[in-house]
Amino acid sequence: MIFDALTRAIERTKNPTCVGLDTSFDYLPSPMKEGANTAKERMKAVFSFNRNIIDAVIGIVPAVKVQIAYYEVYGAAGIECFVRTCAYAKEKGLFVIADCKRNDIGTTASQYARAYFGEEAFAPVDLLTVNGYLGTDGVRPFAELCEKHDKGIFVLVKTSNPSSGELQDLTFPDGTSVYERMGDLVNAWGGGTEGECGYTRVGAVVGATYPEEAKKLRLRMPHAFFLVPGYGAQGGNASMLTPCFHEGGRGAIVNNSRGILCAYQKRGGDYAEAARVAAIDMRADLLSALGGICER
Amino acid sequence: MIFDALTRAIERTKNPTCVGLDTSFDYLPSPMKEGANTAKERMKAVFSFNRNIIDAVIGIVPAVKVQIAYYEVYGAAGIECFVRTCAYAKEKGLFVIADCKRNDIGTTASQYARAYFGEEAFAPVDLLTVNGYLGTDGVRPFAELCEKHDKGIFVLVKTSNPSSGELQDLTFPDGTSVYERMGDLVNAWGGGTEGECGYTRVGAVVGATYPEEAKKLRLRMPHAFFLVPGYGAQGGNASMLTPCFHEGGRGAIVNNSRGILCAYQKRGGDYAEAARVAAIDMRADLLSALGGICER
Repeated sequence: MIFDALTRAIERTKNPTCVGLDTSFDYLPSPMKEGANTAKERMKAVFSFNRNIIDAVIGIVPAVKVQIAYYEVYGAAGIECFVRTCAYAKEKGLFVIADCKRNDIGTTASQYARAYFGEEAFAPVDLLTVNGYLGTDGVRPFAELCEKHDKGIFVLVKTSNPSSGELQDLTFPDGTSVYERMGDLVNAWGGGTEGECGYTRVGAVVGATYPEEAKKLRLRMPHAFFLVPGYGAQGGNASMLTPCFHEGGRGAIVNNSRGILCAYQKRGGDYAEAARVAAIDMRADLLSALGGICER
Repeated sequence: MIFDALTRAIERTKNPTCVGLDTSFDYLPSPMKEGANTAKERMKAVFSFNRNIIDAVIGIVPAVKVQIAYYEVYGAAGIECFVRTCAYAKEKGLFVIADCKRNDIGTTASQYARAYFGEEAFAPVDLLTVNGYLGTDGVRPFAELCEKHDKGIFVLVKTSNPSSGELQDLTFPDGTSVYERMGDLVNAWGGGTEGECGYTRVGAVVGATYPEEAKKLRLRMPHAFFLVPGYGAQGGNASMLTPCFHEGGRGAIVNNSRGILCAYQKRGGDYAEAARVAAIDMRADLLSALGGICER
């Protein structure tokens, strides 16, 4: 079961983090950008960069999160680069989280579900982010293919961005907020799919930047695995995100994108080596805050 | 300004509808499907089908809505077909609504905004659907490029699907619901961008299947142009969607996908001719319910 396998990979690497391949072409070192003017050339450079980042973090992180927006902007050439990046990460034994936040009504959601989880999926993906604003019939097609092909999804519950509260924090008469109600829906969508480690196939996106909300959600959603964005560039630090975890550093995976990809800009030297050092530092930072990762 | 231009095109065609190119390969007549086994071959067939549908409805409808999920499922080949379809519709003078429901935090939303509205956008798109669950900083990048390049967005407010109420209908202590609060955000995001016809660059998706909610939203969002899905296959009829309009049949555009694309399955004969007849019938149906389209 996907979240059992991810939990074991986290235990093996002693590292509940993933590297976010939100690879803007602008992030590449100048020599790699030279002469890359067309979409194809730029995506070729981005793939080389991603491949070297992946090679550098193998054995350190259990997973990558590939943010499709940075590829979609280059059209078909970008999608090809997204596919090659996912495939390379899979080939190297990493879990692939596709960060696409897809959402639609049932018939259309079925197409998205097929796109990422179907027998002829266009990219090899283990986990996908989904926006649940449309309710059950927009999520069911994903959940069904998760069950069939051993995949999982993360539904946006409390996002890491500054304005997330405008809608998500609004409060109902019973004292619950929109994000807590979304959490309840996530519980319902995942119910009955728990693996050995106790997590269902329907996880939640919970921002590192909102520790109080995370604390409430961790209690409210005991069987949901959390994908935690917002560490690093967005302002979240290790102590802020400990509420996302269960005891023993279980039940969550923390993403870092720019802090890894652009580490060379602060540290100097080779970008892949800088990414490796940044990934090792992030692991140490998290392990220190969590008090280690316990094996079951 | 985009919504002035769309309003004039609706007046010219006397038709506040768009054809939804949610073209599942399965919808194609058997002879067009024969021998198309690879993604490229299938997308070639889908593009031929779309081109013939577009040719058949020119002069009848002012716009098409292209649902990207049906293309994304075929990876890079699908994205190429999406681009070619949008480009062909633009070339023929139709407005292109890209139904992608994209959403993310600010930095990533900027990439999506560039993808659809930037100077090097991968597809020629006039209008885009967006999911507003993340709040202002997820929507601002789209709104900024709308202003710069004369584009518009439709934010999901009350969706047409059966489970839309699970989250969207929940009610706050002041009696407003989640969808009404989303409507208020849409008003704020569009504020100050009104064109001559009174509509801002930030419109709303409001399902034809929920006339009571549409009535409330039409009053609450006087300056938002509505994109109205749910007519036909989803169960919405002409009388149900009149609350989405302002007087004189203004301020909304109604989508029909399967009812047009698959008309030949019910009516028999050539698929393009059947689509043309279905589009003419839909116009008559709407005009009768609306009492005509008034020119300003």
